Formats: sequence, C-alpha cells, structure tokens
Amino acid sequence: MNINRFPPRVGHAARFFTGDNLGAITTAERVERLNALDVSEAAAILATLPQQKAVRILGRPELHNAAAMLRDMPTDQAARLLNATANDRVADLFQEMGEDARAHLFSKLDRTTALAVQHLMGYPPRTAGSIMTTEFVSVPATWTVGQTLEHVRKVERSRETVYAIYVLNAETQALASVVTLRRLITGEPQDPVLSVAQQGGIVRADPLMTQEDVARLIRKHNLLALPVIGEDGHMLGIVTVDDVIDTMIADQTEDAQKFGGMEALGKPYMKISFAGMIRKRAGWLCALFLGEMLTASAMQHFEGELEKAIVLTLFVPLIMSSGGNSGSQATSLIIRALALGELKLSDWWRVLVRELPTGIVLGTILGLVGFARIVLWQNIGLFDYGEHWILVGWTIFAALIGIVTFGSIAGSMLPFVLQRLRLDPASASAPFVATLVDVTGLVIYFSVALMILSGTLL
Amino acid sequence: MNINRFPPRVGHAARFFTGDNLGAITTAERVERLNALDVSEAAAILATLPQQKAVRILGRPELHNAAAMLRDMPTDQAARLLNATANDRVADLFQEMGEDARAHLFSKLDRTTALAVQHLMGYPPRTAGSIMTTEFVSVPATWTVGQTLEHVRKVERSRETVYAIYVLNAETQALASVVTLRRLITGEPQDPVLSVAQQGGIVRADPLMTQEDVARLIRKHNLLALPVIGEDGHMLGIVTVDDVIDTMIADQTEDAQKFGGMEALGKPYMKISFAGMIRKRAGWLCALFLGEMLTASAMQHFEGELEKAIVLTLFVPLIMSSGGNSGSQATSLIIRALALGELKLSDWWRVLVRELPTGIVLGTILGLVGFARIVLWQNIGLFDYGEHWILVGWTIFAALIGIVTFGSIAGSMLPFVLQRLRLDPASASAPFVATLVDVTGLVIYFSVALMILSGTLL
Repeated sequence: MNINRFPPRVGHAARFFTGDNLGAITTAERVERLNALDVSEAAAILATLPQQKAVRILGRPELHNAAAMLRDMPTDQAARLLNATANDRVADLFQEMGEDARAHLFSKLDRTTALAVQHLMGYPPRTAGSIMTTEFVSVPATWTVGQTLEHVRKVERSRETVYAIYVLNAETQALASVVTLRRLITGEPQDPVLSVAQQGGIVRADPLMTQEDVARLIRKHNLLALPVIGEDGHMLGIVTVDDVIDTMIADQTEDAQKFGGMEALGKPYMKISFAGMIRKRAGWLCALFLGEMLTASAMQHFEGELEKAIVLTLFVPLIMSSGGNSGSQATSLIIRALALGELKLSDWWRVLVRELPTGIVLGTILGLVGFARIVLWQNIGLFDYGEHWILVGWTIFAALIGIVTFGSIAGSMLPFVLQRLRLDPASASAPFVATLVDVTGLVIYFSVALMILSGTLL
Repeated sequence: MNINRFPPRVGHAARFFTGDNLGAITTAERVERLNALDVSEAAAILATLPQQKAVRILGRPELHNAAAMLRDMPTDQAARLLNATANDRVADLFQEMGEDARAHLFSKLDRTTALAVQHLMGYPPRTAGSIMTTEFVSVPATWTVGQTLEHVRKVERSRETVYAIYVLNAETQALASVVTLRRLITGEPQDPVLSVAQQGGIVRADPLMTQEDVARLIRKHNLLALPVIGEDGHMLGIVTVDDVIDTMIADQTEDAQKFGGMEALGKPYMKISFAGMIRKRAGWLCALFLGEMLTASAMQHFEGELEKAIVLTLFVPLIMSSGGNSGSQATSLIIRALALGELKLSDWWRVLVRELPTGIVLGTILGLVGFARIVLWQNIGLFDYGEHWILVGWTIFAALIGIVTFGSIAGSMLPFVLQRLRLDPASASAPFVATLVDVTGLVIYFSVALMILSGTLL
C-alpha cells in the first residue's frame, strides 16, 4: 500500500465533499458520492477526511465496498476508524472481509472493541445477537435522576442511542427497568432514577431471536431500542430502530426477489456482476424448467386425445395460466400474512376453509367467461369449434372451476408446507406455484374432457 | 346508544386487562386482546379504561375497527379521548368514519384539535401532509439551552416525540435549525440553543411529498423525525420514524399482493369479508383471463400447423412458462429497485442493456436442457418424437432463447412503462408479465417452428 498517493488527493477530497456550500452536505450525500467511485478512489478520499466525518460515513450500511476500502487503507488508520465506529457495524464489516485482512486488522483494534466485536461475531447471522450493538447506556438502580443525567451527558458521543437508558440491579446486574431520556429530564435530580422508569413489563429479546421477530417486537411496541438479554439475565446489547429499518428493507427485497422466482441478489441491481446475476437466476429457472417438463410428459400421455380433438389444445395455455394466476394470488397473500405474523403455522386449516370456497367462486366466474367466449365465437362465426362445440364449452367451464380451486389451495398451502419443512415460506414464488399447478392443471383438464367428451369427440 | 350497558362490564374489563400480574401488560398486548373481540364489546371495554390507557390504545394503527368503536361510545367520551390523541391519528380515524359520525363527533372536539385535524385532512392521502403530526416541539432561535429544556419538560406528555426540537427564526417563524434532545442536555443552560444545533443542511419534506419518499428520506438520514415545511417556509408538522415503519409495512404488503396479481387487500387476510376477498381477486383474474384468451386466438391461428405436427403442442406449456418465469424474475428485480430508488425512470436503457445479454444466456441454458431432454427421451426410447426429432430439438432450443430473452426484456421494461404512464410499477405482477409473454411466446414458438420445420414436418 503506497501511502504517498494520499496527500495529493486532499484537494480532490475537499472539492468533492464540500462544494460551494461548506458544511451543508449530509453524511447520506457523502455516502452516495463515495458509492459512485472506485474502491481505491473512495478509500483514498475517506482516508483524508477528518476522523469524525469518516466514522459517520463508515457507520452507514448503505456505503458500498466499505470492507474493501478499509483493506485499501493503511492498517493503523483503518484500525483507528474502526475503534471509533459502532461495534455492531465493525462486526458486520469484519464478516465481509477475507480471513487474512480480518486477522491483520483485528490485532490492531483496542482491547475493548476487539472483545465486543469478537463476541458479536459469535452469534449466527440474522439473529438479534448479530445485529445488536453493545454500546448502550446503563446505570445502577441505586442512582438518582441527576447522576444518570450526568452520566448520559458524558457518554452521549460514544453511544448509538441515549434515548433508552437501561437500569440494572446493582448486585445481580440483571435488567431492572428502562428509562427514556424524555422521562428522565422531567424527573427531580435528587429522586431515584426508578421514579421515572417505565411502568409494566420490559419488552426484551434473547440473542438468538431472528431479526424478523426483533423487527416485529420493535414495531409492535413502537420502541426506539430493544434490549437483548442473555440466558443468565445479563444485558448483552440493544437493537435500535435504525438497524431494524435496514433489516426490514433487506428482508423485503429478499422476499420480493424470491417471490419473483430467483435467489435474492444481495446487492443493488446495477451493482451485481453479470456472472452473479446469471447465477442467481439460472438455478431457479432450470429447476422450474425441469418441473415444467412434467407438462410435456402429461401432454405425451394424452397424445391420443390430442390427436382426436385438436380443439382441446387451443385452450391449454388459457386454462393452465388461470390456475397459476389464482395460485399466485393465494401465495402472495399467505406469504405476507405469515411474514407479518398475522397467520401462524397452525392456522393452515382456517386458510384452507377460506380458500376452498374462494377458489370455487373465482373458478366459476372465469368458467362463465370462458364458456361465453366459446358460445360467442361459435355463433358470430369467428371460429368453428366443431359440431360438439357446446360440450367443449362445458369442458372449459368445468375444468376452470377445478383448476382455479386447485390453484388457490395449492398456492395457499405451499407456504405453510415450506414453513413446516423449516424452509423459507417466501421461496413459494409465483413461478413455483404456477409450475406446481400447471402439471396438475393439465391432468384435471384432460380428465374433465374425457368425462364430458367421451363418446363424442374422444 | 344505551349507556347502561357499560357499568356491569367494568369487572370484565378489569379482569381482561390486568390478569394476575398487575401493570405488566403492554399497550400492544391490550390492542391484540381488543382485536379479538366484537366492535361493541371492544368499545365497551375501551370506555371503562382510564383515559391515559385508552388514549394509548387508540393511538395504535394496529387497533382494528377503532373508528367503529368511537361511533359506538357516548359522543362526549369519544371526543374526550380524541382530544387527547395525536392529531395525525385522529385525522386517520376520521377518514375511516362515515360522513355523519364524523360531523357529529367533530363538533365536540376542542377548537385546537379540530383546526389541526381539519388541516391534516385537507392533504391528499399517502402524502407527508396526511401522515404528519402537528404536535412537535418548537422554540424561538433566541432561547437558551436552559429555557428550551424547561419547555421540553413541560410539553413532554403532549408530544409524540421530543427527541427532535425545531428552532424557528423568531421573526419569520421559518425553520432555522434542529436540536436533538441528546445534544441539548449536553449544553450549558445559559448558552444559546443554537450552540448545540445540528451542523449542515436540514433534511425536510414538503407536505405533498409521497409517503414512500418520506420513508426514503428518514431511512437515508437515520432520522427519528422529519420536519414538513410549507411553501411559505413555515413548519407544518413532523413525520416520525414510527409512522414511517407503519407506512413501510403497509406499502410492502400492498406491493407484495399486487405482485401476486390482485388488488391490495387493505386488511389482514383473516379479517377481510368473503365478498371483499372475491372482489379484490376476481378483477385482475378476469382481466388476465381475457388477456390470456389471446393465446387461444394465437393457437387457433396456428391450427393448421398444430394438426400437421401434433408433437409441437407437447412443448407449448413448457416453452410458455419459461418466458413467464424469466419475465417474473426481471419484474421483481426492477419493481424493487424502483421502490428503493436504486433505479430511476431514465435508467430504462441501462436495464435493457443488462437484460438483453442476461436473457440470451439464460435462454441458451434452458434451450440446451430442453434439447438434451429430447435427445435423451428419443434415444432411450421413452418417447418417439418422429423421424425429424432432431429438428424438433433445434426448434425447442431456438424458441427458448427467443422466448426467455423476450420474457426478460418485457418483464424488466413493464415497470418502467407503467411508471412512465404514472401508474404504480408494482402493478406489473408476475401473472401480468406471464400473460404478456405467453401470447408473444406462442407466436415466437410457431414462427421458429415454421422456419426450422418448413418442408419436413410443416
């Protein structure tokens, strides 16, 4: 690493980050500007910024390639920045680094930072433990309001949030109560801190709780921060509302992409490499293609019927897609309801009892439209469906009821099945459901046709 | 309204809301318990609770049928509760009420509450103006830290948040700066409040900004509250991070359901009526069905070819679904990138330039798999595709490249087209894209078949 390249760039950095209106540029804007640059260029600029500004930029999860930028900087400088950055963020950055860079940089961290980061990195990803920060404000329950306020003033700069203050039992160190800063300032200095503490139970998480559940708790109780408590009752850290918003966005992007029938990209659309994009999409596309091959097998099975009644093939795409569409509706409803906690695994039969009549009604509506089309086309002479056209119409009508009902049920049950198998219910994508329904749909269609048309067309 | 029914229920309410562990039940839990009851039963219980508790419950958007419960209560009591509830929430509740109940209750509100609510209700739904609260903390720029802190202590109970304090120009009343409570308490009492104010520009919204953009700003700058400024430079209100989280969840549920191919339910899955469910799903299902009817028309058009080469029909579902699946992937990627602001309308050509080669590569992969299947089945004797089986294989191969490429492009461009037409890009659902691609897919398939098989099978 050539340190000499930094000095000549100071002018560049200054021009880049202040513009005309000195001081009027926010951290978020600085992050955006850095994201537009190469890693090495961005690292060079970050290295020339005052430490406080650089730390604020480094703290943003929106900053691209932050780990690579740290590797690109002189190690001592990188360590200085990391010592001043929130521990949960440092742990995230370390996760993104290669083994070598991590070990090298880790040895240069402050002892307290190193211990906290090591601790945080021990929790499985996507748990409360892995997204929490250990830098929270805590005071013994024996303190007064005045003592607490004095302490908050002192540590304010080094804590992610000071709006929730955790009161610990002076002997056991267990979490006794929570005081919000807004309530704290209304207290009399000489009163005990517990006099302004929250009434009622403390909402808490254990370190292995999933980040989705953490987000749900924070949302449900309108919290600014949620304390994470270990098995021994000791407080390990807090998850703040900012972290939860970032988590929610990432989760929902993942869910949306999975529902579209692919692996989650994990990066912005324009940032992922071409090879990465192909990898994330080709897997599911091939799996769905192989599944859908069963439709060719089903068609082969009914080849005799197809030859006798070519008119049946005309409606194959129409009928199949209707099943897929109703399935896609049901799946999107259930995935979302499961994600929001509106439904639990044990609710599957209540959903079944709703989807069955819904599917029948929707299928009947489409069936009537389909029947009307055949009657209309036949009678105004747009197409000749043969002498048994009215039977063809009934076949379409009955098949649509069966297929749309099957689609609704398959689409609504698939997320439950996946959740039961401990897979992500969000993997029940629209294409997955469509594939599932297509094969069965063909079998339903030809079976109905055999029943109705046997002796006439078939 | 029979007031006599309330008193005998007090015992019920007390039992219902305290249990054994007095005081240990949170507002969120109370909301959940009320949600499990009938409207009239819930209203009766709400009416018997101490005002402070009832107001906290009423403030939660998760509470079902809150407007109906207020209608069910004695008007004076409902008005007392509303006077003590955050103005933005009152405005939301009024939006949910019928014209009559609204007018009746409105006349009983405090003058200040009534004015603020009327003002809020004047903004179009889903804008910063409609989700903001007018109850924020503001102080003149001439005040000291001590004066400001004293003021915050006094108004703390009546404000949704006191963590952001807005400093107004004493003469023009324009927003001059923002002070966070955490910085305020670190200041010396006699220093001017501006000495602890935030450096740099103030992030702000105008009242007609969409709630999605408001959420994006709050997320981007990690704010607890965002000030909303009118055209004349006066501060109108604030949007808090809680409101934004609620908004984000609602938006994402809506987007997920739209992507599934239906209208957004607007209510939890188990809460919507059967007729409501049918209405929200039948519309799109019928529209898609009508669109998909074009496949029947396309098939009718190629009936001659179908009769000559029945082998072609076997692969119709397989080929069509591949186009739909690749389209669904592309659409989910682009909708999400547009929602997150990663892509802008003007980026459409950059996306096109990415999706074209992506589609070609993905199509080639599927084409090879399809070709291999035909060769394999033919040679191990699972099915006889006729003497020209190798040409059938090439047809499938070439058609898949064309269809998957078309699917990727149509799927990625549809959200841009919808956004350009000022429609919601999230309406580009997986079934919508599949329908779009199915019709074109058939035409591509038969055109390729005509080119390759002309003179042999066709």
